[in-house]
Amino acid sequence: MSSERFTLKPIGVIRSPFKNVTQGVPIQGMLKPETRGTVDIFPEFAEGLKDLEGFSNIYLIYLFNMCEGWKLTVVPYLDTGPRGVFSTRSPHRPNHIGLTLVKLLKLTGNVLTIAGIDMIDGTPVIDIKPYNPAFDSTEKAAIGWMEPYFNNGKIPDTATTSMKQWKHE
Amino acid sequence: MSSERFTLKPIGVIRSPFKNVTQGVPIQGMLKPETRGTVDIFPEFAEGLKDLEGFSNIYLIYLFNMCEGWKLTVVPYLDTGPRGVFSTRSPHRPNHIGLTLVKLLKLTGNVLTIAGIDMIDGTPVIDIKPYNPAFDSTEKAAIGWMEPYFNNGKIPDTATTSMKQWKHE
Repeated sequence: MSSERFTLKPIGVIRSPFKNVTQGVPIQGMLKPETRGTVDIFPEFAEGLKDLEGFSNIYLIYLFNMCEGWKLTVVPYLDTGPRGVFSTRSPHRPNHIGLTLVKLLKLTGNVLTIAGIDMIDGTPVIDIKPYNPAFDSTEKAAIGWMEPYFNNGKIPDTATTSMKQWKHE
Repeated sequence: MSSERFTLKPIGVIRSPFKNVTQGVPIQGMLKPETRGTVDIFPEFAEGLKDLEGFSNIYLIYLFNMCEGWKLTVVPYLDTGPRGVFSTRSPHRPNHIGLTLVKLLKLTGNVLTIAGIDMIDGTPVIDIKPYNPAFDSTEKAAIGWMEPYFNNGKIPDTATTSMKQWKHE
């Protein structure tokens, strides 16, 4: 099983104000909700966007295509010590898949205008899913090693990336 | 760009009480939170699970490997009319990727015991991410065509799949 391989096809591309990882990219879009961008869906998939406009929030699933290699232990942006990669949102994972819940501001043809972006310009999108709090959220959640950084709902000061951290990982 | 292809490698496999889609699989795990199963991570990726135990909820990203083909317009399990596939959680999407927020009950070696499972036994897992409400949830959300089915926080009666619906799609 572990030698099996699956292929993905991008369905669109993200247009972002962040042209590379040195530009203070938010580590999670919702921590910097004012950042805006677009998702340009390739015309052949545009029909699949029908009915999406009624959703205020959507998941973007995308590829960390600027990221080379992966590790099982990483130093997260927020933290100073090594953590198991699956307990982090680091891009340096066995499959370079990213997940961000963004706000859908507008849908015009095959272009989605979104807020709360944390991707680099040119990022390939592989899926969009509607967000429904009934099955995508939970009121109480233990957040392990992240707990001290999010005490009392505060937003961490270090909520953007830096080249040092990107390289370090 | 749209002709580019990316490959994925499974990092583990889901063991579920649901052996096939005729067995009343929940359409979303959180709507049937009592259903339990395991995620068996392949030994070569087990080190990446370190520090995950502190998180009560995790995202599983997996492949709908029983699903053949895809459509841009589908009839969702909950609904009777055709919807754009990206406004649904249907498996019949251009990339056969599933996303479910589950409860992590226990981590023993390379085996995660989880609750709120909605996958079929043998489903390949491609990523695990920790859930943090600070960036993975939002209090108010418009849910488009799903709204009438989730009025006042109710759980839809039709919250499991049926073979008819699977084939229909």
